[in-house]
Amino acid sequence: MKIAVLGTGMAGRTLAARLFALGHEVTIGTRDPAETMGRTEPDRMGNPPFSVWAATHTQVRLATFSEAAAYSELVINATNGSETLQALELAGADNLAGKVLIDISNPLDVSRGFPPTLFVKDTDSLGEQVQRAFPEARVVKTLNTLTAHLMVNPTTLESESSVFVSGNDADAKATVTRLLESFGHTDVIDLGDITTARGTEMLIPVWLRLMAALGTPMFNYKIVR
Amino acid sequence: MKIAVLGTGMAGRTLAARLFALGHEVTIGTRDPAETMGRTEPDRMGNPPFSVWAATHTQVRLATFSEAAAYSELVINATNGSETLQALELAGADNLAGKVLIDISNPLDVSRGFPPTLFVKDTDSLGEQVQRAFPEARVVKTLNTLTAHLMVNPTTLESESSVFVSGNDADAKATVTRLLESFGHTDVIDLGDITTARGTEMLIPVWLRLMAALGTPMFNYKIVR
Repeated sequence: MKIAVLGTGMAGRTLAARLFALGHEVTIGTRDPAETMGRTEPDRMGNPPFSVWAATHTQVRLATFSEAAAYSELVINATNGSETLQALELAGADNLAGKVLIDISNPLDVSRGFPPTLFVKDTDSLGEQVQRAFPEARVVKTLNTLTAHLMVNPTTLESESSVFVSGNDADAKATVTRLLESFGHTDVIDLGDITTARGTEMLIPVWLRLMAALGTPMFNYKIVR
Repeated sequence: MKIAVLGTGMAGRTLAARLFALGHEVTIGTRDPAETMGRTEPDRMGNPPFSVWAATHTQVRLATFSEAAAYSELVINATNGSETLQALELAGADNLAGKVLIDISNPLDVSRGFPPTLFVKDTDSLGEQVQRAFPEARVVKTLNTLTAHLMVNPTTLESESSVFVSGNDADAKATVTRLLESFGHTDVIDLGDITTARGTEMLIPVWLRLMAALGTPMFNYKIVR
């Protein structure tokens, strides 16, 4: 499948590499490709500059948000939550219309230090904001509840864990579920419509505290019945 | 141990019965024992009147919030979140001072229908409100992340699951952890100080949606490493 991954941070890179390895044609979208490739310093999370990663992933194309979305059949939003709506505006509503739009972002407000709080929650969610802003996109919220490596390599954990899908379009959720299963996920729970993204986005506060308590981001939730 | 369970709903009854079965001397606290025993209708959750339960649990005493707390060495708040601070006021700060106060409540706002929202979240928590209101109590937030039956019978699930403790007093958390282990919990995660209750209280929105999706409250989170 032709897949656009919007965002050049660790989540975007990790998803892009795994999708390419699985045989997809992957385009990473960014605001300004020349500016992205020209960076020489680690990003604010301490990751190497994008160009270092790109040098070892030459078959993943870098393009503008708009070009990446226009070219692809399925779009993954892996930008920061605070930049998500703007990035998707740049991708263009016409380029998203009718397509499955996987939203993995979290509405983190880092302005008050660690742990971040959420800039939308409880009575609304970023997933819903995305769906409202792009009503013709078929938004599926997923993978916002675990670290990038485990999003696409869940079998590296000691036992099975769970991921969630939220969205209004059953066919879109089925497509996303197949993609998740191709990553190795074996317990994909359909929570319901896009409003259920309120639930998974509100998992982040305990995730942040678990990361601090366990000293690692390499964990995930399993829903034990 | 002498244990007070504040609250006569399903959570309070389930905890009281299990604690009694484990050999503890249990007193259930309520606002007005005569009024509680005089009810003849199911409660708003559809549970039988308290007197029906009490008839088969005659060795669990019913007393006022204040009497129950004064008599006991450890106090469990199992009242509704919206009534928690008032119930603890009635229990009395002097009767809580120095004692381990286990808070299992959730800040549910049911005024807008289902699913409920949270009346405090993200930048504060009900656990912190309790600790601030009763600074001499040694508050431990726990067991607010699963249904009453599983709080005290976790081994009925198909495999191991996790529970969390949040609190400022290490000795209090150690006491609570032993109590949780006596219920059958084998993965008790210490998240840190009472501010980490923000994380576990914000698990409720996804718990409510999981209950709807799975059609049962009989599930729990396992943190898979």
